[in-house]
Amino acid sequence: MKVYSKFARHLVAVDCIIFGYDIYEKAIKLLLVKRSIEPAKGKWSLSGGFVDEKESLDNAAKRILFDLTRLKNVFLSQSYTYGDVKRDPGARVISTAYFALIKIRDIDNKIKKLNGAEWKPVSKIPALIFDHQKMVSDALSELQNQIKARPVGFELLPEKFTLVQLQDLYEAIYQREIDRRNFRRKILSMNLLQQLNEKEKETSRRGAYYYKFIPERYKSFSKNGFNFNLDAS
Amino acid sequence: MKVYSKFARHLVAVDCIIFGYDIYEKAIKLLLVKRSIEPAKGKWSLSGGFVDEKESLDNAAKRILFDLTRLKNVFLSQSYTYGDVKRDPGARVISTAYFALIKIRDIDNKIKKLNGAEWKPVSKIPALIFDHQKMVSDALSELQNQIKARPVGFELLPEKFTLVQLQDLYEAIYQREIDRRNFRRKILSMNLLQQLNEKEKETSRRGAYYYKFIPERYKSFSKNGFNFNLDAS
Repeated sequence: MKVYSKFARHLVAVDCIIFGYDIYEKAIKLLLVKRSIEPAKGKWSLSGGFVDEKESLDNAAKRILFDLTRLKNVFLSQSYTYGDVKRDPGARVISTAYFALIKIRDIDNKIKKLNGAEWKPVSKIPALIFDHQKMVSDALSELQNQIKARPVGFELLPEKFTLVQLQDLYEAIYQREIDRRNFRRKILSMNLLQQLNEKEKETSRRGAYYYKFIPERYKSFSKNGFNFNLDAS
Repeated sequence: MKVYSKFARHLVAVDCIIFGYDIYEKAIKLLLVKRSIEPAKGKWSLSGGFVDEKESLDNAAKRILFDLTRLKNVFLSQSYTYGDVKRDPGARVISTAYFALIKIRDIDNKIKKLNGAEWKPVSKIPALIFDHQKMVSDALSELQNQIKARPVGFELLPEKFTLVQLQDLYEAIYQREIDRRNFRRKILSMNLLQQLNEKEKETSRRGAYYYKFIPERYKSFSKNGFNFNLDAS
């Protein structure tokens, strides 16, 4: 429209913070790539790209995630938009960050090799380009908030998991220990998990029952004003 | 930089959700304007504008807020970026929303008249242009979350207030009643308020002590890992 034509136009990018959880190392990890264009070519970076003319921000995030991982229907949540004029030394670029939660085993190792991407534990991230370190720490805070109030943690776990594995995940995200009995009581009282007739026996002789998360229960409870609250301390 | 030159450029706007609190009506209100340009000229709208070439998103939000209210140093928080291709019928515009918390009495009535702006209770908002209604409800959810975890509510109150007035504010934001004794106990135990030697006597004969919030205490407590938590129920 003509009235808008006098205003400045900007490059707009989306950067994806891709979180995965390593159930054996009990560590939250980030999928990082080596940047393919100048400036800062070859440096560790989040996976990002420019928003096309006829593409929504959400679709740009989905495209960037798919191009790297070949995954669709992944949990994606917008976290923050970074708009400082000099944040990218290449040009003025406004960037909206999204974080994704994926199951590490869903990514084919071949794909990873093809793209030169690597999983790095959030506790030991290499130097990242531009303001990507800030994007990661903001997204991690946001994840810490969301995991208290919504059942997003299950996106990071295999379909079946033990209660200890679920607690390990929460401790990895909160980056502190939480009380075991309180946690079990809270999560079981919400009635969102189904106990399976099968035990995990690698870590103890007695074994621990596997559970799975039933998203339909959460949906139907939420409609009735149910409040997910796992602010375990 | 040359490598970026092939990518699309976008109009980027900032829209401000300006919240105020009416201590007498016990209502959260929004400062709305009538849109001055086509399309949708003359319709109720948030106060917004386009981001300049050499202006950060934060500075654009401050400028837009200042142009309307003549206020500086106002609480501003980015809430979400709206990136659907057809959200604005005038052109493809990506818009980042910020919400502001201001004391209603800080705004001169003359300025309001000059700009044709009006305070409307959030419970009775007129039809707004584009996706502005969604921006308001998202910002309100964000405010509900922030007010639990950070002392942002004081931005909306006069310098001195009674505990009942503070509770009224929380009830107006949560849009539900909260338990009076629990609330008083929680807020006083945080030791962030100073009781003044002065009473409010308009609403009861016995009167109620005024308090004020001491931001320095919050800053010094926060450094030592203090956790503001007013998740009163």
